[in-house]
Amino acid sequence: MRNIKLTIAYDGTDFHGFQAQPQLRTVQGTLEDALERLTGARIQVNGSGRTDAGVHAWGQIVNFHTDSRIPLEKWPIAMNVNLPNDVIVRQAEEVPPAFHARFDATGKVYRYQMDLGTYPDVFARRYAWHVPYRLNLSRMQKAAEHLVGSHDFTSFCNAATPVDDKVREIHGISFETRAHLLQITVTGSGFLWNMVRIMAGTLADVGRGRIEPEEIPEILAAKDRTKAGVTAPAHGLTLFEVIYPKV
Amino acid sequence: MRNIKLTIAYDGTDFHGFQAQPQLRTVQGTLEDALERLTGARIQVNGSGRTDAGVHAWGQIVNFHTDSRIPLEKWPIAMNVNLPNDVIVRQAEEVPPAFHARFDATGKVYRYQMDLGTYPDVFARRYAWHVPYRLNLSRMQKAAEHLVGSHDFTSFCNAATPVDDKVREIHGISFETRAHLLQITVTGSGFLWNMVRIMAGTLADVGRGRIEPEEIPEILAAKDRTKAGVTAPAHGLTLFEVIYPKV
Repeated sequence: MRNIKLTIAYDGTDFHGFQAQPQLRTVQGTLEDALERLTGARIQVNGSGRTDAGVHAWGQIVNFHTDSRIPLEKWPIAMNVNLPNDVIVRQAEEVPPAFHARFDATGKVYRYQMDLGTYPDVFARRYAWHVPYRLNLSRMQKAAEHLVGSHDFTSFCNAATPVDDKVREIHGISFETRAHLLQITVTGSGFLWNMVRIMAGTLADVGRGRIEPEEIPEILAAKDRTKAGVTAPAHGLTLFEVIYPKV
Repeated sequence: MRNIKLTIAYDGTDFHGFQAQPQLRTVQGTLEDALERLTGARIQVNGSGRTDAGVHAWGQIVNFHTDSRIPLEKWPIAMNVNLPNDVIVRQAEEVPPAFHARFDATGKVYRYQMDLGTYPDVFARRYAWHVPYRLNLSRMQKAAEHLVGSHDFTSFCNAATPVDDKVREIHGISFETRAHLLQITVTGSGFLWNMVRIMAGTLADVGRGRIEPEEIPEILAAKDRTKAGVTAPAHGLTLFEVIYPKV
């Protein structure tokens, strides 16, 4: 059996998230359908993690085991002709038998995009949260510095998050503006449910003056979701990259 | 009667072009529907020109006459709440009674976008032509220089173009690359049917070696559509700006 690792991009707009669910159009289900058409077998695909409905990916990673002898360099095109045009296989690699997209991931990079124009940018509307308020970027950067490091992120995850240990390490948060678009890139060891969206929503609240940058340490310490800002909408979020140890 | 000029952006993907047609979803029809909801009257909108099905706009200009007393600064938001989210009013101005979006335009700027990545960029797929060949940009730039200036563009327009005088002046063609995306910006006094798409298709043919840059003058001189390259697909094209004399 070969173990194939694929780098996948998708436009999450028309998917009910990554994880397969009966009767719903999901990224995992769509990938497994394409693999079945290609190989004749129903093969389970392991994703590096779920993404919620509406969330996009530029560098989602999946792996699966197959007996197919399709040469490695043919995998992307063979998959792409069997996929709808809102999912694209960008790269294929053959990896050791034990590699698992989720268990072996050591970090992830997410990008949250905000559209700061007065009116929504029609070309960014599927990929950016339109925030029609004036945001103070230097306040947002100050607040972000308080989020970097190892913290208990209970205040920054969905209250229903089904894990006990909510300590995660954020390696960095960077800001880039391109005309009216603001991209916030967050790199970390791991992320809780809705964590980046709550960080983005809280940073927007800081930017418009509803929360002070200096309040972030108290919000973290409270371990109470209600203390942080709004959950920014799913469509501004993109899973940009998944990090693995060098083989 | 007031004469209102609007700057409009639209995602052309789901429209049958700009011009109103019975039973079809068009940009003009959609704007007139929104105006009717807003003012109670059916008002004809004049566009600076048609755009074909699938073509986008960042700075399409329209004007219309109305008795409505909506204050000028309220027009964009009042229209936007009545428009679907693939058309956005970016700006409103009040103009002299005789202003006409089409007849007063003295130039236009179009942008044609190509995706040069090995596999299509899922986020650009609605707005860029995926060209999976290696293109030589300096050959394309040389060819473009031959297109700049005043020429008879019979070879660069749809053979069914219903106008006699096919002389147009191209003021400039510039190239910009952003990662795997190539943007070709064409400024001119006026454009014939499919002209930018045939220019873009021909430049791509030059880039991949099917046409030599030095052949462009002969192709222009031939006044024969079959001598130029392919018509690049509509979805890569955006009407970027319409130019009017300073008032």
